[in-house]
Amino acid sequence: MSSSIAAAPDRLLPSDPGTRAIARNLLELVQDLPIISPHGHVDPAMLASDTPFPDPASLLVTPDHYVKRLIHASGVPMDRLVLGTSPDVDARSIWREFCKAWPLFDGTASGYWLRSEFEHVFELREEISEATADATFESLQRRLNEPSFRPRQLFKDFNIEVLATTDDPMDDLRFHAEIAADKSFEGRVLPTFRPDAYLNIAHPDWVENVDKLIGEAGDGASGYAGYLAALENRRDYFIKHGAVSADHGVLTPRTLKLDRAEAERLFVKARCGEASAEDRDIFEAHMMYESARMSVQDGLVMTLHPGSFRNHHLPSFEKFGADTGHDIPFPVSYTEAVRPVLQDFGTAPDFNFILFTMDETVFSRELAPLAGFYPSVYIGAPWWFLDAPDAMLRFRSAVTETAGFSRSSGFIDDTRAFCSIPARHDASRRIEASFLARLVAEHRVSEERAAELIVDVVDAAPRRAFKL
Amino acid sequence: MSSSIAAAPDRLLPSDPGTRAIARNLLELVQDLPIISPHGHVDPAMLASDTPFPDPASLLVTPDHYVKRLIHASGVPMDRLVLGTSPDVDARSIWREFCKAWPLFDGTASGYWLRSEFEHVFELREEISEATADATFESLQRRLNEPSFRPRQLFKDFNIEVLATTDDPMDDLRFHAEIAADKSFEGRVLPTFRPDAYLNIAHPDWVENVDKLIGEAGDGASGYAGYLAALENRRDYFIKHGAVSADHGVLTPRTLKLDRAEAERLFVKARCGEASAEDRDIFEAHMMYESARMSVQDGLVMTLHPGSFRNHHLPSFEKFGADTGHDIPFPVSYTEAVRPVLQDFGTAPDFNFILFTMDETVFSRELAPLAGFYPSVYIGAPWWFLDAPDAMLRFRSAVTETAGFSRSSGFIDDTRAFCSIPARHDASRRIEASFLARLVAEHRVSEERAAELIVDVVDAAPRRAFKL
Amino acid sequence: MSSSIAAAPDRLLPSDPGTRAIARNLLELVQDLPIISPHGHVDPAMLASDTPFPDPASLLVTPDHYVKRLIHASGVPMDRLVLGTSPDVDARSIWREFCKAWPLFDGTASGYWLRSEFEHVFELREEISEATADATFESLQRRLNEPSFRPRQLFKDFNIEVLATTDDPMDDLRFHAEIAADKSFEGRVLPTFRPDAYLNIAHPDWVENVDKLIGEAGDGASGYAGYLAALENRRDYFIKHGAVSADHGVLTPRTLKLDRAEAERLFVKARCGEASAEDRDIFEAHMMYESARMSVQDGLVMTLHPGSFRNHHLPSFEKFGADTGHDIPFPVSYTEAVRPVLQDFGTAPDFNFILFTMDETVFSRELAPLAGFYPSVYIGAPWWFLDAPDAMLRFRSAVTETAGFSRSSGFIDDTRAFCSIPARHDASRRIEASFLARLVAEHRVSEERAAELIVDVVDAAPRRAFKL
Repeated sequence: MSSSIAAAPDRLLPSDPGTRAIARNLLELVQDLPIISPHGHVDPAMLASDTPFPDPASLLVTPDHYVKRLIHASGVPMDRLVLGTSPDVDARSIWREFCKAWPLFDGTASGYWLRSEFEHVFELREEISEATADATFESLQRRLNEPSFRPRQLFKDFNIEVLATTDDPMDDLRFHAEIAADKSFEGRVLPTFRPDAYLNIAHPDWVENVDKLIGEAGDGASGYAGYLAALENRRDYFIKHGAVSADHGVLTPRTLKLDRAEAERLFVKARCGEASAEDRDIFEAHMMYESARMSVQDGLVMTLHPGSFRNHHLPSFEKFGADTGHDIPFPVSYTEAVRPVLQDFGTAPDFNFILFTMDETVFSRELAPLAGFYPSVYIGAPWWFLDAPDAMLRFRSAVTETAGFSRSSGFIDDTRAFCSIPARHDASRRIEASFLARLVAEHRVSEERAAELIVDVVDAAPRRAFKL
Repeated sequence: MSSSIAAAPDRLLPSDPGTRAIARNLLELVQDLPIISPHGHVDPAMLASDTPFPDPASLLVTPDHYVKRLIHASGVPMDRLVLGTSPDVDARSIWREFCKAWPLFDGTASGYWLRSEFEHVFELREEISEATADATFESLQRRLNEPSFRPRQLFKDFNIEVLATTDDPMDDLRFHAEIAADKSFEGRVLPTFRPDAYLNIAHPDWVENVDKLIGEAGDGASGYAGYLAALENRRDYFIKHGAVSADHGVLTPRTLKLDRAEAERLFVKARCGEASAEDRDIFEAHMMYESARMSVQDGLVMTLHPGSFRNHHLPSFEKFGADTGHDIPFPVSYTEAVRPVLQDFGTAPDFNFILFTMDETVFSRELAPLAGFYPSVYIGAPWWFLDAPDAMLRFRSAVTETAGFSRSSGFIDDTRAFCSIPARHDASRRIEASFLARLVAEHRVSEERAAELIVDVVDAAPRRAFKL
Repeated sequence: MSSSIAAAPDRLLPSDPGTRAIARNLLELVQDLPIISPHGHVDPAMLASDTPFPDPASLLVTPDHYVKRLIHASGVPMDRLVLGTSPDVDARSIWREFCKAWPLFDGTASGYWLRSEFEHVFELREEISEATADATFESLQRRLNEPSFRPRQLFKDFNIEVLATTDDPMDDLRFHAEIAADKSFEGRVLPTFRPDAYLNIAHPDWVENVDKLIGEAGDGASGYAGYLAALENRRDYFIKHGAVSADHGVLTPRTLKLDRAEAERLFVKARCGEASAEDRDIFEAHMMYESARMSVQDGLVMTLHPGSFRNHHLPSFEKFGADTGHDIPFPVSYTEAVRPVLQDFGTAPDFNFILFTMDETVFSRELAPLAGFYPSVYIGAPWWFLDAPDAMLRFRSAVTETAGFSRSSGFIDDTRAFCSIPARHDASRRIEASFLARLVAEHRVSEERAAELIVDVVDAAPRRAFKL
């Protein structure tokens, strides 16, 4: 038996013995339920081709900006963590940097997930350390070469029922189609419509993207009319390939209904490269209104996640690109911002509008009150920097007293790190059990109801919020 | 003995056995103290006439927007919850909707209060459920027909010493006078001066209200001079009828001292219907300054509660009116906003200025620092969406280390739901006991002082803050 | 043995017995480590001259605006707490006011520190109360007359290794030089460069300060060039006297890189007394950029603490001066504000940029994400109103899951109250032990690693962040 803390059966459960006993019982009810992952960033090609993962660094370090960022903060230059930047950087050297930095991860969510993966996915018995770097690299490499560590086998072993990817609107979705057509693989792998690069006129490729979008999907129409038609057509294409949601990463939560002429005017201005920063904001806000309208029509769940200053450190962005660990949150407020959408569609039948945040202040102040009135609004699970044990407990504490358990989205792993999926869902289930156990211990919820609620929260909530 | 969680003697107390034992002892010291309710929305006519409550739905569901909002969020159209909207909507059908939605209330403050009422006020032994809806409706209806369920008998049984209502400045307060004159009823029922509809120039009835105010109470003066005189006169009238406070529901916490000419100019402009949104904000801010000045003169405690976007969903407001569950909080900051008032009156003798919030971020950042310096400032109890066990614990944790226990207002139930008053005060006392018990267990407060503090917080604090 | 709660060996430790046992073991590892105090407001003259403290009120009440503010809030006019305001105000009358107000301090951080001082520094056996005011005054006075209560002996007994003071850039630092030259005294007492009154053009003495600065340290240059040169020279002077950091108390966290001509233009305008409020903001933001640049060059750690509305109550400021208890926090956001500095210096070698806040919302939203990427950024310990047990636990919970334990500054006592230093550091160590003990109990950190982490956090972190 491993002595790793990740092997402890009571990990993440509350320390008070009475509450822990209740939490254990609740956890047992959901521990073996299938994983539903309605939002994430796993590459569908990986599952379509089912090729082995190349090496531990490429699997666990280089694609995970949660991991790289903290190593970088300790003083390791980013190019020591990116393949192809220098002849002396290879998978093994990156793995050594990671092992050296491993003690920095104590107490972090990433550290918890990695430790769980080492324990439960890879059954690694050595502790990660600078001294054992080569040994653990080789142990893991051997595992990755085994057939049981191919993506599809892991998908099955992880007990994943549904996995949604995140995809460009012009993606032909052939990997999704391949996976769906293959009768030998039972997992559902769904695309998600993510049109940011087509709606944000400040995106460097916006003009090119829009030209292509209209040209290929605009039904022959040109200009703004073709643009809207093409977006609607591509949403339909995604729906035909199983998509259940459209995901929107925006700067602010602002929404706005422009009249047609004004929207067209901005669209034309933007295509000429003449739009101002304020034009960008207004057009994005308007396109959120339009996206909501489309969701009401075609049934795609709309998820919104504003409030991140993307690529905060320009030199790192220029050298290493996006998603390299320096997207930094800032304050948001939803109350006035989403009102235009909620005025018109807040009580529309079958409209699901899931609001995410990295600014915890909105949980009790805005999201619980909104979701506690509007049938369309779901409170997005705590995610990104907030997808962690204490933050998840703060989330439940902040929203439940106003909105109960039925108005939240269910857990979202939002990950590129395929092998971390079981650890993330396991952590979430443990925290749900912990929170409910406290309510039981304080006689705020009966033990019978808590047993029903934990199944609802883990299993029914994501199916309900994402129409699965 | 009931098996309901609401019957558990340790409900809401901390789960750690040692801390719970301390909390139990502290709770015992305050459990039988009279209820002091210095701010709420009970209808004084109900107590003046002492007529029986008509039926369970009209008592427990239709007037309580906390309850209706969550049923609405589950997809029940608002007109299914409002009497008179359709021939097939009656008290019984509304009660059925409530019973069907009952599981949604687990973990919410409203659910806790209702469960407590069922247990302790109505001694209902059936669990609420869709299946038992008719049975519980009838059980409760029988109770409501009993003489012991008349409002005045409940007032006595609830051990209410003082109950403040919330009243229009032009109200003649005859129900308050009737109650006061009736020697057979010992409870104190006090009016509260709530002039929002006379100070907010964007209120739809503002012009009409102001005409009436000046005409009836302006001492013959007209214009702005008559307006100020009339407000002062009506405050005096309220004071003569027992009022101890003036309550201000404003958009933002901004205060401002305009010079007389500028205030008059805006007043005239507003009466001509020509005021802008900015004029509205400025005039409201100025009238908060004027209200503070009047409070310094006449001794009415001033309570301020900004930060709610009223009637967020316009279609619901247009169909069902105000207070239907879609007032949504937004961020506030008091520090600069109340400075004009505090510059001039912050150390004025006998001025009590109670600041409420639904934005928890101001508790540690602003309210505790302000109340820890200014003798006039009291930190308003966590209210509205924050009047709930976890939120109350967060409140105490956020303010106590800076401002101690003496600078908060004491509990405010702020309710229209008369029968929930004992449950709300009981919950508050249990949370105060829980918080203090933790400080005792951590050797931060001695057990002897905690025993004094809980009595101070429950009984002396509201008397001190509201001059009772 | 004392029965004071301050004598309890388990004070501040968590109440759950299992977690408390772990916390006790962790605490033992750091309880006897030397005190490192890299930021505070102790007067170096006191240590240079080593004269006895005059009396209990001058030691414990009058210089401590945390203490005076809460007495003031209870209704005691500030002039009753300030020597020299009236013939009947003396040390003894101030002490009586303090004793009378003592019950107000229960649950506050100040109350905890004072109680600890009475117990552990002064071994006072009487409880503080109005009745015992004269007795305790005399007991304490006797202590203060003993040689063992001289500042230097206390410094040694407190086990202080390093103490940084906060100093005016034009200070000749002779007290620091005297202390350093005295071989009989082993403590390190370091100056800190605090140039606010030279960078904030709205400071009442700015013109005069700048004239003096340029005249005495500008290398003969005049104008803006002389100003920058003089600042650099004075920083060098401080470094030669042992300074390790430059401290910046600014209004907002804004930073900005102006071009040279624009900076000069504003500088000239300000010296003519013609700068606007917006000019002030821009110039301060620019000087933060310049200060960061200088820190990159000369190695002084840069600490930044925005977000306090200084001297909120103008009448008190006019009568009693600054630092009299009415600096009130307001909301801040760092994400965009510090970007200009981080763009250019965020990954600069050996640049340490410590960000403090009194707005807790930035801990999880901004500071942990920033410090989890930028090697230069350290998360400032919770300070001022947040330097208290619950606030410190909230801080660790808010930042650790994103940034781990390595990215925070270590404890800062920030105090003028010399005798409170041991109590403050002791409280911090107890809270670190409490937080880590919970992580151990929840199997989130191993007991072995927790033992290493607590030593790192208490001892290595301040040395690392402040280059000691």
